[in-house]
This record gives sequence, C-alpha cells and structure tokens, in this order.
Amino acid sequence: MNTNKIKHIGVFTSGGDSPGMNAALYAITKCAEVNEIKVSGFRKGYEGLIDGDLIPLKSHDLQKLVHQGGTILKTARSERFMTLQGREKALQTLRKAHVDALIAIGGDGTFKGLLAFSEICDIPFIGIPGTIDNDLAGTDYTLGFDSAVNTAIENIDKIRDTAESHNRVFIVEVMGRDSGYIGIHSGLVVGANGILIPESTQDLHLLLEKVKNYHSEDAFLIVVSEGDETGTDLVASKIKEVNPDIDLRITRLGHVQRGGHPSAFDRMLGIRLGAASIDVLLRGSENVMVGLYNNMICTTPFQNVVKQHHIDEELQDLLKVFGS
Amino acid sequence: MNTNKIKHIGVFTSGGDSPGMNAALYAITKCAEVNEIKVSGFRKGYEGLIDGDLIPLKSHDLQKLVHQGGTILKTARSERFMTLQGREKALQTLRKAHVDALIAIGGDGTFKGLLAFSEICDIPFIGIPGTIDNDLAGTDYTLGFDSAVNTAIENIDKIRDTAESHNRVFIVEVMGRDSGYIGIHSGLVVGANGILIPESTQDLHLLLEKVKNYHSEDAFLIVVSEGDETGTDLVASKIKEVNPDIDLRITRLGHVQRGGHPSAFDRMLGIRLGAASIDVLLRGSENVMVGLYNNMICTTPFQNVVKQHHIDEELQDLLKVFGS
Amino acid sequence: MNTNKIKHIGVFTSGGDSPGMNAALYAITKCAEVNEIKVSGFRKGYEGLIDGDLIPLKSHDLQKLVHQGGTILKTARSERFMTLQGREKALQTLRKAHVDALIAIGGDGTFKGLLAFSEICDIPFIGIPGTIDNDLAGTDYTLGFDSAVNTAIENIDKIRDTAESHNRVFIVEVMGRDSGYIGIHSGLVVGANGILIPESTQDLHLLLEKVKNYHSEDAFLIVVSEGDETGTDLVASKIKEVNPDIDLRITRLGHVQRGGHPSAFDRMLGIRLGAASIDVLLRGSENVMVGLYNNMICTTPFQNVVKQHHIDEELQDLLKVFGS
Amino acid sequence: MNTNKIKHIGVFTSGGDSPGMNAALYAITKCAEVNEIKVSGFRKGYEGLIDGDLIPLKSHDLQKLVHQGGTILKTARSERFMTLQGREKALQTLRKAHVDALIAIGGDGTFKGLLAFSEICDIPFIGIPGTIDNDLAGTDYTLGFDSAVNTAIENIDKIRDTAESHNRVFIVEVMGRDSGYIGIHSGLVVGANGILIPESTQDLHLLLEKVKNYHSEDAFLIVVSEGDETGTDLVASKIKEVNPDIDLRITRLGHVQRGGHPSAFDRMLGIRLGAASIDVLLRGSENVMVGLYNNMICTTPFQNVVKQHHIDEELQDLLKVFGS
Repeated sequence: MNTNKIKHIGVFTSGGDSPGMNAALYAITKCAEVNEIKVSGFRKGYEGLIDGDLIPLKSHDLQKLVHQGGTILKTARSERFMTLQGREKALQTLRKAHVDALIAIGGDGTFKGLLAFSEICDIPFIGIPGTIDNDLAGTDYTLGFDSAVNTAIENIDKIRDTAESHNRVFIVEVMGRDSGYIGIHSGLVVGANGILIPESTQDLHLLLEKVKNYHSEDAFLIVVSEGDETGTDLVASKIKEVNPDIDLRITRLGHVQRGGHPSAFDRMLGIRLGAASIDVLLRGSENVMVGLYNNMICTTPFQNVVKQHHIDEELQDLLKVFGS
Repeated sequence: MNTNKIKHIGVFTSGGDSPGMNAALYAITKCAEVNEIKVSGFRKGYEGLIDGDLIPLKSHDLQKLVHQGGTILKTARSERFMTLQGREKALQTLRKAHVDALIAIGGDGTFKGLLAFSEICDIPFIGIPGTIDNDLAGTDYTLGFDSAVNTAIENIDKIRDTAESHNRVFIVEVMGRDSGYIGIHSGLVVGANGILIPESTQDLHLLLEKVKNYHSEDAFLIVVSEGDETGTDLVASKIKEVNPDIDLRITRLGHVQRGGHPSAFDRMLGIRLGAASIDVLLRGSENVMVGLYNNMICTTPFQNVVKQHHIDEELQDLLKVFGS
Repeated sequence: MNTNKIKHIGVFTSGGDSPGMNAALYAITKCAEVNEIKVSGFRKGYEGLIDGDLIPLKSHDLQKLVHQGGTILKTARSERFMTLQGREKALQTLRKAHVDALIAIGGDGTFKGLLAFSEICDIPFIGIPGTIDNDLAGTDYTLGFDSAVNTAIENIDKIRDTAESHNRVFIVEVMGRDSGYIGIHSGLVVGANGILIPESTQDLHLLLEKVKNYHSEDAFLIVVSEGDETGTDLVASKIKEVNPDIDLRITRLGHVQRGGHPSAFDRMLGIRLGAASIDVLLRGSENVMVGLYNNMICTTPFQNVVKQHHIDEELQDLLKVFGS
Repeated sequence: MNTNKIKHIGVFTSGGDSPGMNAALYAITKCAEVNEIKVSGFRKGYEGLIDGDLIPLKSHDLQKLVHQGGTILKTARSERFMTLQGREKALQTLRKAHVDALIAIGGDGTFKGLLAFSEICDIPFIGIPGTIDNDLAGTDYTLGFDSAVNTAIENIDKIRDTAESHNRVFIVEVMGRDSGYIGIHSGLVVGANGILIPESTQDLHLLLEKVKNYHSEDAFLIVVSEGDETGTDLVASKIKEVNPDIDLRITRLGHVQRGGHPSAFDRMLGIRLGAASIDVLLRGSENVMVGLYNNMICTTPFQNVVKQHHIDEELQDLLKVFGS
C-alpha cells in the first residue's frame, strides 16, 4: 500500500484493559499528528467498530492522561465481531469514516480478530500487545505487566507486615489465568517462601515439605498464580493437612492488579510501542504486532502472536533457588 | 498508687495488629525515658507476658520505625491467659522483671483480659485502642482505622479504572466483621454507587432497584462490609437475579487492609495516645483506656470499653444520600 | 431569605488548590440535586464569576472524580474582584444566570472577597475551608491538610532510607508560609530529630546543641516549615558552623504537597462539608463558613474566619518532647 | 583460581545508595548458602573493609528486607581507600576474616577502587551496578534507576494536579548530575511539554519558542535534569524573559529519588544480578561487573565500566517528537 495515502488512522483497545494503554494512545496520536494524519478512537473495542462509535483523538488532550489507568476508549469483548455479519458492519464503519489504517491494542484474541477481518478489509492493521499477563510471543513485555506486578507486590508487602506481626502463613493469589509471569515475578521480589505457577508443576511437594517444618517464628508467604492447576483452596487444604497447627490465611488480590496508574516502565513501553506502530505503518508494514525484543522494537506477524508459556532458563533457576 | 515508684513499664500489643502500633510504642518509650522510666516490651501479646519473653525498648531505635506497619512486638491471641493459671504465670513474670505498670495496645478483648488480670495483679494498667475496625466505645478513632480505609480506597480507585474501562459492576468486600466503619467511610469516599454495612439493613432493596436499571454505560461500584449479614456472595446472586445481563465481578480486599505504612493520622494518633498513656499513668490513673473524643484526650474505664456499632446521625444521612 | 426559592446554586474554588476540593464539589452537587436544585460551577475562582465562565455540574460525572487531586473548576487569585467594578460585573453574571446562592471553597482571602461582595449582592453565600495549611479559625481541619501531610511524610520516609544508608543529616523543608501545622505534624510522625516551625522560636538553639554532638552513626532528620523565620538556608549554615564535619543535605518538597489523590480523611471532609454547605444554606444561613469543630459540623461568620496560628497545649508538649 | 576453595564471600555497598541493593544482598546470600558458602557484609563501603566492620549475612533475615529501600550495610565514599595505606589495611581485614572473594555493589568509582585493590589483593572481585543514574557502560539498567524514575513521576503527577488547577508552568528538576536518563524517562512518561537533559543541548531554543506562545489555558510541565548545563534557574529566567506573564514555579525533587521501596523491576534486577554474581564467581570470573544487556546477563571487565552518556537513536527520536 502507498503509505502516503494514510490520512486517517483508527485506533481501539480490546480485550482486558491494562495500565499503559492511554500512554500508547497518546504516542499514536502525537506521532500521527507529526505526520499530518488524523486519529479517531473507536470505543469499546470491536463493538465501537461495528456501531460506528468513534471520537476524534488529539494529543493535546491525551498528554494529560498518560498517567491514567484503564483506557479512555473503554474496552470490551465482542461476540458480534466473531461473525462475518459483524465484521461487514465494521467494514462499513471504516469506509464511511474514511479510515485508512487501524491500530489495535490488545491480546492474541484481538489480533486473531484482525486476521479474520483482513479477509474482507484491505487497509493495514497494526497491533500493540496490551495485557497484564505478559504471555504473548513476539515481545519480552506486554503493556500492563510491570504495573500489575508492582500493584501485586505493594499489596503483598502490606500482607507481610501483618503476617510477621502474627507469625502467620499467607497464601496470596495473583492474576495469571494461563501463565505464571505475574506469579513468579511478584513471588520472587517479595521474598516469598513458596511460589506456585502453572508452568511448574512439581513445586507443591517441596512447599509442603517446608511448611511441614514451619513452627511459626516468622511470616511465611506463598504466592500462587490463579492459573496454577492445584488451585489456591487445594493448596490451603494440603497445607492444613501436613501441618494442622498453622494459622493460615488466603488473600486473592483480584482485579486491583488491572488498575491504577501505570508504572514508569509501562508508560514508557506504551510510548515506545505507540510511536513504533506509526513508524512501521508508515514504512509499509501490515498485520503485524510491534513488540520489544531484547530491548529493541521488532514486529511479529499476527499469526505468530500466540500465547506463550515459556519460562526461560534463568527464571527457572531463580524459581528453584528462591521459590522453594 | 504512688506513681513516683514507677521505674519500669511493660508494654505489649495484643489482638489483631494495626498500623500505628509502632508509633505508639515509640511515644510510650520516649515519654517514659523523659520521666526516667525504663520500658520493656513483651512479645506476642499475653503469650510473652506468660512466658517472660521481653525485650528492652529504646526510643532511639523506635524512632526509625514510626513509619513501619504491623507491630515489632508481634501480637497474638492467648488461650492460656484466659485461664487463672496463665494469669498467675504472667504475674510471676511481672514480679520477676520488677514491672511497675503495664500498657496494652489492643481491642476490647485485650482490655477484658486486663480486667481479669487486675484481680490478682495490683499494678496499674493502661490501654490504648488498636484495631482497624474503629468500633470501640470511648474513642472517636482507633489506631489503624484511617490507614485501613486509605489502603481500601487506594485499591478501590484501581478497581474503578478497570470497571470504567469495561462498564462493569464490581462488588468490593472490605474488612469489618461486626462493624461497617471501614465500609461506610471507604464507600463514601470512592464515590460508590452502593454501600452495604451491618448497621444498616434496608439498603439492599434500594441497591437492587438501582442495579435493575443499570445499563452498562458506566462503572458501578458496590462496597460491602464483610460483616454485612446479607453476605457478599448473596448480594452478587441477587444482583444477577434482577439484572442477568450485568458483567459482575467480586474482589475481597482481605488482609492487605491490616498492613502497610500507617497514615499520617494514625501515626499522630499513635503518638498522641502513646504520650497520653504515660501522662495518665503518672497522674495516677489505672484500668482505663486513653482515647480521642471530640479531638481531645480522654480516658474510659476498661469495663466501659465495649464494642460499639453506632453510626451517628450525620453519617447515616450521608449514607442515605450517597450510598444508595 | 426564603430558601424555598433556591433553585440554582453557583459554586467555585478559589485561592490555592487543595486535595479534596473535587469531593466537596461532588457532595454539593449531589445534595443539591436531592433538593431539586441545579448547580453551576464557575471556573478559575472569581475570574469565572466576573467573566461568566460557568459549566453545569452533575453528580453523576463528579462521582468518578472524588479521588482526583486539584480542582476540576480550576482556581486563581483575582485582582479584578478586589475592585468594585469587578464585583459589579460578577453581580451581573449571577443575575443573568439566575443564581440564587453561592458556595465558595477557599481560604480567608476568598471569604473576605465574599464579604465585600455581600455589600452589593444579597443572595446567600456559604464558605468551605480549602487550604493545605490548616490555619483557619472556625474549623479543626481544612480540606487538603491531611493529604499534604501524607504526601510530605511519604517523601520524608524515602529520605530516611537514603539518610540512614549514609548516616546523613537532612533538612527537609515542608510547606506552610505562615503556619507550622504541616511542619509539626509531618515532623512528629516521621520521627524527626528536630522540628522548626514559625510558631515556636526557641527550638533552633536546642537543635544546634543536639547537632553539635551528632557523630554520624545514624540518620538525623530535621523538618522545617518554609515559614519558619530562621529560614532553611540559615539553619543549614548554623549547623555547619557548630559541626563542620556533618554531611548535610537539603530537600524542599515544594508543590508536590498540593497535589495527588486526596486522602480518605480529606475526601470524607470534603463530602461532610459539601453536604453541610447545602444543609445550612437550606436552613437559612448566609455568610458563614462550615467547618469541623470537635468532630462536629459548625458554622462561623466570615468575619471571624481569620488566619490562626495557635498550636494547642497538647501539641506544644509533644513538640517539646519529640521535636527537640 | 580454584573456585572450589571459595568458602567465604565478603560483600559491600559503595557510593550513592540505590533502591534494590537489599534485594541484591538477599540474592547473593541465598545463592551463596546454596553453594555452602558463608557471607559477611562490610558496613559503609570501603570504610568497613578498612576498619574490619563486618557482620554475618543470612538469607533468612534478608528475605524480609527485599522490599526495603537504602542498604542495610550502609554506604559511604572512602578517602582512605584511595591511598595505598588504606588498601593495605583492607587487605589485612580480608586475610584476617579469611574472605575468599569480594562482591561490590556500586558505580564506576567503586569498580575503579577494586581495580586498584587488585594490584595487592589476588582474590576475585565481582561488581554489581548500583546507581540511580543508569549511566554505566556494560548494562542496560542499573539498580535503582527504575525506582528513581517511578518516584519522580509519582511526584510530577501530583504537580500536574496543581499545575492544571492553576494553569501554571512548572519546572521540575530531577536527579542526574552527568546524565539525563532519569530526565528523559520521567519527562516522556509524565507527558511533559519540555525536557532538558545534558546530552541534548539544542532543546532550550525550541522550548522557549513554545513557552513564548503559551497563554495559560493549561498546565505546562518542563522536566530538567540537574546536570543540564543550562541550569534550572537560568531556564526559569529565560522563560520569564520571553513570556513575563507566565505564572512559573520550580520544584527540585532532590534526594527523595534515592529512597523508597524498590520497584518490582529493581527488586528483580537485584535478584538477577545478585544471583549472577555468585554464578560467574563460581565459574571463575574475576574483576568483572555483571549486567543486563538485551535482557540477558553479561559481564564486563571493570576497566570497561565507564560512565556512559549515550542516548540511543530511538530515545532521541522520542525526545524530538514528545519533549519539544
């Protein structure tokens, strides 16, 4: 495609929201403006695309919102876009609004949607990885992960205070339905005594050995990913089994990990990836996700952006030494 | 008692820990030192009293710890102190250590223990209200309440980010097993759409009316005290009943509300009540709790320090206008 | 005045901004709506009154902004309102907009302006105390004070980390041009080794005595109010005089103390005073400030709302024991 | 050297403290224990080495302190170690304590000290980069940088609140005596209107052009590195020159940027580099710094660890688009 013809870009956020999305929106809009391109934001992900629910975006307004959590465009999952009928309505919206390119911030599901859409819509699509789970191939970091870990550990630090005051055992469940990145990172950096994640299935036994000999002269913190197959409640009951005297508490941090001001790292990531999305678009790329690999901007075709559950060797070693 | 004879004070924290306890320990020790009194801290509440587990406290060390959550003396509930035998052992500890007065930071259970103890031990006892629940007669504020509310609302603010991004309904359960102070305060100040607390039983009906007409163009936040008789899960199921389309999430904040750096207010309260405990002790008081009433230091006999569930008229009016 | 006739209230924020102002705006609007009164917000304080710069306020929008720092109405100091000509223009604005009553959030200067205005404008005025300095007669707490102290101590806690790592002496200057409330509160609760405030002029001598003997096996923190007459730089040079070996650093916290999310206490204060302003207005009060005295709502005629620099006896005693 | 002979490692922190140092100490100790090596910590950097001021380190104790700012070993700059006599005394300390290897956490000055020391002391030395300035060759990130940026932006976010309420121009000075990494990162992610750093000397002109046309309907934030040659005060006076009507304020964030709980990223970096230091030591490395390059552990000989002021092309481009 002749990228000189790009005069109007549409952008939307899709799937679960994550801190840093507004920073990316700011960067996209600012870099577009520098290239004399106007930007419209579609609200509520694919739903706004289908319903023609769009607003003009100006970098001057977004500049004040870089620090804000969530996404000012709102986000949603869309059943309708999974149907051809829905996608055809979206196509009409784009034509009516004269949108020449589309940038989506979301996860692998979002990009799968774009792939399906590309069968009937031939304008270029660019993706930006936005999910707190950090489990996408094609990037070392996804938008929101660093913020989610920081929120998790601020809360676990608080739990340490009360755990140490009472010599209690705490199980803290963190987010990560399929992946243990939040779990392993937050567990390591709060000095957890045990870390259970879906990618590593042999740790429960070791943990139970340790807990068996625990005689309450200290706090004992266990971080469990919600996706860990054992399940937080089962872990609790097994602990009570091997050491019935333990004063055990469970806290599930839940959706607080999705919100709050993005961390410096996530804001910077949003700005880098937002700027990169315009850059690669203007260089003629399409149907790729921009990402950060070895601290450098890279692109990955949508079809290769799959969920990834690989814990690298260094991290596995750390888990072995510190988490069990 | 001749208070000139007080040369050695024992202090301990008991019951649930709460932010600000270390500030109180600092103030007690500093004010004691000014009066040439030495201070020993008993560890793990009454357990340390029974077992003679005590450490010397110096204001020079505690000064660095005013900002620290939890209690450096640790705390516990003691079955043994509920027996006469346990209390007799505690008496021996005090005699052996030549302790002339005892200051306890805790809740109504702690002070009941002191009352029982006073039958066999004739040194003066002073109490300081330390519980995040803010439900003690004799003081407008208990140590830790302001910090707990601040922790709750920081987390609920984060939940607002994701709730607004998704137009979701969230039920956030806050602490308060018997009392709704944390619930009413945190609910009001996060701009909650509904607040359910144990002291007010008619609000669920109003809430369901509102939720019935909720059509997802905004976040909708409901704050529920864990002690609310309806129960968080039941509230959720009733909401789903009246409006099945709602995208509902539950987060239970849990023990994070007990930890973390104390707020400015709680540190100041700890310092004021800590200083006051030495002051009233040296003026000859005994078996009273020092508290803050209408912004002034006051004392209340232990027998009158009961759990209190009174929501005053002003707060009730606010709840009616803002919380339903 | 027949308060039944109040159908439209104007509100504005004036003077320095302070955290909690948006909470007060929310409460004013919500309580007005309950009474079927509409609310308009004038932007930039008296400037908006003069220029007719007003926007409609809806509680539904403000509910999401309770946690936000600053004031969404913006604020300013107005030279023009000090002239009769300016006030006459403001009067025209109010008449044109059919405003029946006016609520102002600000300091003593703001209320003086209203008194002058009352000579030509006979609708009722109500004031709400909004200033981080906490130095107004007629209320125990002003909006923003608790947040400012919390921001100050979070930063001073960080300074303690580096001060202890280096065994350094730090002078931290906090806000308070004429009053030492932020200084005394923040100094006490960070465990400062010295506290210098304008209301207490003999402390420098004691501080220098202490510093003279300081031999760097610890951090040494000095909190100074910007309004302290000695001046931060002079304090520094005197310290270097009595103990030239000291590794001394100065940090001026500055305007960070004005911003940030309001604390739970300030949000609650904003809601209480906002609700009270509508309440007393509808009961027929005029030209009074609502405040909190001994934890209860009270009103004070504008002419009595002067700057107040009284440190009560309890606080003075604490300062003597802990701050020097 | 035969690394099997390593039975006792000495560790110390040197130069400016930075958040994450305690996490590194925890990891060093834990990994050493796994290899049956004991660890001693020298207090106050090289001073403790000279004076034989050492304490045993146990991972069990350090595990609770991962979240703590500063360094529990304290740090200092040492004049004495710059002399041969000082280094000879340090050598005696190491011999007397039977220390077989030394790990230092600090900056380029620290490593230069080790190089000089290696002339008389033949045990292996390993370095870990600890400085908030992020300006060392051999690693993409230094310990403390991410935390310092997060502290800076949390404070600048607060300043935005008050700046927007007043339509004010703020100059915020951040740390970075020779390097602008904190400046460029924090400036970009707070949505600053201008960013001035030592590595880029042409931006002042552009900034003044922008400020000239600023007519106060918004906040205007300028982030300046303390090392920027123009100097914060000069920037301020030039702004007042081109636009005298501007309501300008200056805030110097100062030493708060050195303290506070380390961010998740810095704790993880501390754990990774701490673990790596033991790993490379046991593999026979000596006189190298472990670092993170392209997200992987790497080592750099001490002589190559110089101060580095290179802003890469991507960052320069971002600065051009967003910072001016």
